[in-house]
Amino acid sequence: MTDIKLNHLAIVVDDMQAALRFWRESLGLSQAGEIKSVPAEEVDIAILKLGDAQIELIQPTTDESGVAKYLAKRGPGLHHLCLEVPDLDAKLEELSARGCELINEKPRDRDGRRYAFIHPKSAGGVLLELYEETSADCRAGGK
Amino acid sequence: MTDIKLNHLAIVVDDMQAALRFWRESLGLSQAGEIKSVPAEEVDIAILKLGDAQIELIQPTTDESGVAKYLAKRGPGLHHLCLEVPDLDAKLEELSARGCELINEKPRDRDGRRYAFIHPKSAGGVLLELYEETSADCRAGGK
Repeated sequence: MTDIKLNHLAIVVDDMQAALRFWRESLGLSQAGEIKSVPAEEVDIAILKLGDAQIELIQPTTDESGVAKYLAKRGPGLHHLCLEVPDLDAKLEELSARGCELINEKPRDRDGRRYAFIHPKSAGGVLLELYEETSADCRAGGK
Repeated sequence: MTDIKLNHLAIVVDDMQAALRFWRESLGLSQAGEIKSVPAEEVDIAILKLGDAQIELIQPTTDESGVAKYLAKRGPGLHHLCLEVPDLDAKLEELSARGCELINEKPRDRDGRRYAFIHPKSAGGVLLELYEETSADCRAGGK
């Protein structure tokens, strides 16, 4: 048994409107909210609902970000997989102890999201994000 | 509202045992069954449970298949996304009418699975498989 579940699947796009025409208009996925600008990550993001999970369409807004460089090198397509885990700190410690290379050794915290990336070297070529759902109380504890 | 859901996410690997060590042993996903050999596709497949959906680890067993060429060109990592749709024939007709390029214009049927691939050109760089759950009765109808 496992309590790991899909949080989102990120797709890097070079034309957000064209991507939305395919995923939303042609395929029929529902969009959650409007396109969101995330200047800290130099991207625009559109979220499509996929059951309890989401597809995130990510378009770089500069040429310098990691996502922009990925797009320039590999073209648009599947970018990363985000799985939700019950205890992110414990999972990162366990992965580290098993010799996995972590991009973020400690969870990052932004807008109430606690997450960390695992290096594709250790995850069979997949850029893997692990995510923990947190409540405001937990976050205030600074765990 | 949409009734499209994730069926599986396929990851191409160059070392199945190493991949299972990461996804199953280190990360903690449950494996469904044993590694399955699929000679018709020239791959071995291991299935990991992800809620109601699955992660499929795919390793080519020859150098000639599409998956083998993908692996040689792009390395291991996320390979394709499979979404379940309620009416595959209708969805393919609709996508075609909207100008999307289909790899399989009509659904393929194997082992009770009805599926068709959409060309990455039309799906923002993503190799997208659409899948319809079928009963034996429906399949016997040859629809």
